[in-house]
Amino acid sequence: MDPRVHEHAEVLVDWSARIDAGDDVVVSVGPDAHDLAVAVAEQVGERGASLLSTYDSGEVDRAHRLAVGDVPEPEHERALFEAADVYLRLGGGRNTSATADVPAETRRAVREAHAAVREARYDTRWVSTVHPTRSLAQQANMSYAAYRDFVYDAVLRDWESLADEMAVLKDRLDAGSEVRLVGPGTDLAMSIEGRTAVNSAASVAYDSHNLPSGEVFTAPADTEGEVTFDVPMTLQGQSVRDVTLRFEEGEVVAHDAAEGANVIGDILDTDAGARRLGELGIGMNRGIDRFTDNILFDEKMGDTVHLALGRAYDACLPEGEAGNDSTVHVDMITDVSEDSRMEIDGEVVQRNGTFAWEDGFEA
Amino acid sequence: MDPRVHEHAEVLVDWSARIDAGDDVVVSVGPDAHDLAVAVAEQVGERGASLLSTYDSGEVDRAHRLAVGDVPEPEHERALFEAADVYLRLGGGRNTSATADVPAETRRAVREAHAAVREARYDTRWVSTVHPTRSLAQQANMSYAAYRDFVYDAVLRDWESLADEMAVLKDRLDAGSEVRLVGPGTDLAMSIEGRTAVNSAASVAYDSHNLPSGEVFTAPADTEGEVTFDVPMTLQGQSVRDVTLRFEEGEVVAHDAAEGANVIGDILDTDAGARRLGELGIGMNRGIDRFTDNILFDEKMGDTVHLALGRAYDACLPEGEAGNDSTVHVDMITDVSEDSRMEIDGEVVQRNGTFAWEDGFEA
Repeated sequence: MDPRVHEHAEVLVDWSARIDAGDDVVVSVGPDAHDLAVAVAEQVGERGASLLSTYDSGEVDRAHRLAVGDVPEPEHERALFEAADVYLRLGGGRNTSATADVPAETRRAVREAHAAVREARYDTRWVSTVHPTRSLAQQANMSYAAYRDFVYDAVLRDWESLADEMAVLKDRLDAGSEVRLVGPGTDLAMSIEGRTAVNSAASVAYDSHNLPSGEVFTAPADTEGEVTFDVPMTLQGQSVRDVTLRFEEGEVVAHDAAEGANVIGDILDTDAGARRLGELGIGMNRGIDRFTDNILFDEKMGDTVHLALGRAYDACLPEGEAGNDSTVHVDMITDVSEDSRMEIDGEVVQRNGTFAWEDGFEA
Repeated sequence: MDPRVHEHAEVLVDWSARIDAGDDVVVSVGPDAHDLAVAVAEQVGERGASLLSTYDSGEVDRAHRLAVGDVPEPEHERALFEAADVYLRLGGGRNTSATADVPAETRRAVREAHAAVREARYDTRWVSTVHPTRSLAQQANMSYAAYRDFVYDAVLRDWESLADEMAVLKDRLDAGSEVRLVGPGTDLAMSIEGRTAVNSAASVAYDSHNLPSGEVFTAPADTEGEVTFDVPMTLQGQSVRDVTLRFEEGEVVAHDAAEGANVIGDILDTDAGARRLGELGIGMNRGIDRFTDNILFDEKMGDTVHLALGRAYDACLPEGEAGNDSTVHVDMITDVSEDSRMEIDGEVVQRNGTFAWEDGFEA
């Protein structure tokens, strides 16, 4: 086995999920994530924690979803997660389009029937990661060998030192009131007054639930201006390219795209919250050096900024205050490595990808 | 997909587990049982039942078991099964020896830590089956294609009519007091007074939890005489051949074997109950036409009789009465197709595999 599989498991169990003796751990295993599951099982065992593996197959889900009429609420699954301390999702299927022909209304019904399961799962120390599989390599237009290198470069970071670095940006955002993004096709202002940024350092200790992570994000409001997302991606099974959004008084009032404008229109029409921003995120993981059409990696890439239409994360909001609410949370990404800057309260904190506290920064 | 995979799933869901709308179903999936899992998911969905798949990998278990010190009790897994209505085990790994190097004391510790989980699982409508895999074909010394035919011949029976046929033997056993087995190297008498035979027709409706099944079994007592098991098998990873046991006053007083006598000795030394019989079973599934070194199939084969050292099944005992107790239940098999007979209270009910109520029977 590639020794990096064991290192991945160690980071996941120790740094990300902080697993300890007596924890009841659920590990969800994609059909091609077997090797990572074996390595994780060893680490979970060494910590003295118990282990239940679930099988996360798109083909199994599809068969059940297409056959079932009224989607029943899985009470046994809720009981499992209510009794669990930790949930580790090891993604890795054989076909990233395995559920492509499940109708939207069925997905919606399943999401509703699983609301209590999801809530119980979010109450655990949950972490989502992926094992590098051939199907993910294919989605990234990469060879399997090159894709494995890509994934481990992103995952096997010095997370402690990245957390320290990200803390600098978090402090600036927490102290600030307004963020302005300027770049080709972009001049956007938004309020971050009273909001708390999350230092997303790939650990539950940082309110961060993705491995890899490496972004600082907050929940903006009162967005004004125009933004262009120049990083191509697949949304709801369709290619989307060069999306532009125009905001007035916090709401999208116009949208366009070189490809996939209809998908963006569908998303905006989901509910009222889908026309407002739920997230401003700044990618700071420089182990990620290319876009692979996988949001888990793309939005964390250094020299990128992403915005999400829809739901805001509670961690960014003052206690008891509700942020933007929506059933969707759709991230879109801008490359800020050239002709771009980010200002906080009029002060430039990042230019062409370089932060104010880094070597080579030009104010 | 082989259409027999869908037929297998239908038999499992309808005949065996009697799945209905609103049932909360756990399906345990072996790493190579994926195709059967997809077919079962469709059937479970069609019945309007919910589905949670668990991943049953010997390699994952081994990694956890070898690493863990004190085995923790998995409380989340117990909660899952306490809330579940149905448990379907779809066996099918990639290596039937995947856990061969887990020490016996670790297995014992795991069995103890999982006692409550096991109990909760046995309280569901549970059914154990296997998907034909290459590793099972290898264990059977068969090609993959031939093994698939073998499995489906065993599983895709007319279970209703086999249940009717087995009911005839069950009635004879329920009415009888003593069974005598006579054959080459065998002359064994045992009491079945007051015991109830199980018509094991591969359905929870018959207290039967294996697919395939096709046996009638009861819990004998006061065994006297000698028996030879001429069907070779693998026990605890070792080959065992031509085992003979001598019983006095219900207990094994002498044992021998052409191969693996030490394994039998180890089993007999487990605890007091391991020296007594827990089961007398009569195989009646004539879809099984060869031994494949897999007890799920071998013990159900027509023209065979098996006896188990160790634990007796509650279903065979009068309400409130405890049968033979042991942590083991080890089945061993005799071919009765030649020079053999079974008597109930002195009356021959089977000779050379043919029952008294069948064509060709010679009293």
